[in-house]
Amino acid sequence: MATETFSGSIKDLPTPCFLVDIDKVKRNCSRMIKRYRDVGVELRPHMKTHKTIEGGDLMTGGTRKKIVVSTLAEAEFYASNGFDDIIYGKPVIESNLYRCKKLQEKIEQFHLLFDNEKAIEALERNPLENKKWSVFLEVDVGGHRTGVPWDSDKVVELARLASQAKNVEFRGIYTHCSESYSKTSDTAVRSQAETDTKRFLDVCQRIRQAGVPVETVGLGDTPCCSVFVDSMAKLTEVHPGNYIFYDTQQFGIGSCAFDDIAVRVATRVISHKPEINQIVLDSGFVALSHDGMYCNLPNGIAVFQDHPELIMKKMSQEHGCVSVKSGQIDCNAYPIDSMLFIYPYHACATAANHPVYYIHSGDKVLGVWKPVKGW
Amino acid sequence: MATETFSGSIKDLPTPCFLVDIDKVKRNCSRMIKRYRDVGVELRPHMKTHKTIEGGDLMTGGTRKKIVVSTLAEAEFYASNGFDDIIYGKPVIESNLYRCKKLQEKIEQFHLLFDNEKAIEALERNPLENKKWSVFLEVDVGGHRTGVPWDSDKVVELARLASQAKNVEFRGIYTHCSESYSKTSDTAVRSQAETDTKRFLDVCQRIRQAGVPVETVGLGDTPCCSVFVDSMAKLTEVHPGNYIFYDTQQFGIGSCAFDDIAVRVATRVISHKPEINQIVLDSGFVALSHDGMYCNLPNGIAVFQDHPELIMKKMSQEHGCVSVKSGQIDCNAYPIDSMLFIYPYHACATAANHPVYYIHSGDKVLGVWKPVKGW
Repeated sequence: MATETFSGSIKDLPTPCFLVDIDKVKRNCSRMIKRYRDVGVELRPHMKTHKTIEGGDLMTGGTRKKIVVSTLAEAEFYASNGFDDIIYGKPVIESNLYRCKKLQEKIEQFHLLFDNEKAIEALERNPLENKKWSVFLEVDVGGHRTGVPWDSDKVVELARLASQAKNVEFRGIYTHCSESYSKTSDTAVRSQAETDTKRFLDVCQRIRQAGVPVETVGLGDTPCCSVFVDSMAKLTEVHPGNYIFYDTQQFGIGSCAFDDIAVRVATRVISHKPEINQIVLDSGFVALSHDGMYCNLPNGIAVFQDHPELIMKKMSQEHGCVSVKSGQIDCNAYPIDSMLFIYPYHACATAANHPVYYIHSGDKVLGVWKPVKGW
Repeated sequence: MATETFSGSIKDLPTPCFLVDIDKVKRNCSRMIKRYRDVGVELRPHMKTHKTIEGGDLMTGGTRKKIVVSTLAEAEFYASNGFDDIIYGKPVIESNLYRCKKLQEKIEQFHLLFDNEKAIEALERNPLENKKWSVFLEVDVGGHRTGVPWDSDKVVELARLASQAKNVEFRGIYTHCSESYSKTSDTAVRSQAETDTKRFLDVCQRIRQAGVPVETVGLGDTPCCSVFVDSMAKLTEVHPGNYIFYDTQQFGIGSCAFDDIAVRVATRVISHKPEINQIVLDSGFVALSHDGMYCNLPNGIAVFQDHPELIMKKMSQEHGCVSVKSGQIDCNAYPIDSMLFIYPYHACATAANHPVYYIHSGDKVLGVWKPVKGW
């Protein structure tokens, strides 16, 4: 599992560091695999949260087939490590085609997203040698990021354009979900998942009615895929990512139980500042990320394990300033050099800042995972 | 200068990527070196912003002597590359002493900060073989992060404790500045620099009056050190860091001219969303960082070169959603695949997310710098 070994316990690790509870990760991965196997929908896990080979193995159940990535650096990393059937999850642009060509040569199936005609024109201008470019139309079902609006005529027009283009094979449609990240209960997420799936299947039907075959119909983010609604069984695949780790944001949304959160940042107390009602940790925004700093969770961005009374007041690059929610902090309760554990608000953002993850089972550190970085 | 060469122009770079204008960097570094040479105060540049050998060379004028670092990973990196006289800029804790010992053995001068008696007790328990631990007392002049409050009796007590401790050499006092990052004009920063310096020199005087020699008196952050006030000539050293790059935050504070900002994120347009008044970039919070997302700069976190009309509305991991400040965006003005350049809000936070920096002069890319990561 690990590329290096570390024979020790968590308490001996340098801080700040990113901890991954391997037992929870395995449980999160197995549960998602089983859920979608049971309903006959393929699981195409997204790698963006962890960006490691080891995590990819657990999410694909060891097949190393059928993943989504968020950067070409990830695509190249996974392709070089035996993974295949990879979707690059951002609308492709012509400037990137030289790298996409190499990926198409290296592995059997490398798929691109598109949401405009420029992309198809670019693919026609840049043919592959022995196969066609494989493309998915990205649909915006209400997430308001990339993708063609689900209720516009352009979904059919672009699907037809791609299906008729030289050098291009139109494979299907793809969407991130819509507003599930703003929800605060699994009931609300379920309702959103219903709406998103309905909109997305409607797009699929309209394209098929226009005479264009749609082989793959893939939707998903972690909130929707974690709750699951019956209509999702009509999809051919789903592509959640964050669930490998989960985090306090996902817990707040209703995607997981608190006990499912598999990652923490370990940190140590480096200073006592009773005169300003504060202790200071050796973890700042590089160790935790700013994502969620202005969230509405009761504990703010940082949920401290076993210390619900603590709250992160501010962070600089390498310092975290912590106080109690009410009253005066008792510094003696948090001795200098003692270790605290923080459940991150957004695991993807926090993991992105760490060059190495420490993998543990209970208090025993088993080794490290090293994520790919950059673009 | 660069560890790899890249023969091309900026327009051919993969995006998102972090650009460093070497001519501006050299100018920023030379100006700071000259300013403090002229007033007879030593410059001890902080490495935390860039974390590269090449940047360290430019900031020290090639001496590789007298720097501050924000992590032990930085200390080890610089020590392994011929740098010496290094301050580790966070209060030391006993858990880290095994790494500090190796650093003390490896280089001639490695200094620690402390702001409590526990640290001194720990150093006494862990003697070095052939020398004493070199320590600076960290003073809080109003920044409310780490450090002993400047107006408390503890500054004298702790200085005396360290000066009398076995195995320890008390070298002097150190402070980050106070509230300069909340200022919005160079006049306000100057006034703050006056106050901070006065408080800090007062601490120095009180410690000396108590019979404890104070050899080194070092203050600084980039705002204060960029404006300079006469009383700062009484310091023995200053330790700014961000000025190697500067950023839109520093410009807003009044630390630099806009033309001094040496870093940008290059990004490309990947999607047009006229139906929601938006274009989408291939740079999200991993490429830019969230720091400053809620700042009060007129353009928000992202200042777009040559496009003052644009504003970043929201970011996800790898997507930046951009609109115009008023009216309807003309998508044709920002073609798919065209490159845009973003001046970051906080260069330290943005640089921390990039595994490589592209160094350029004009439009020509000269090579790359690779920063050290982690802790």
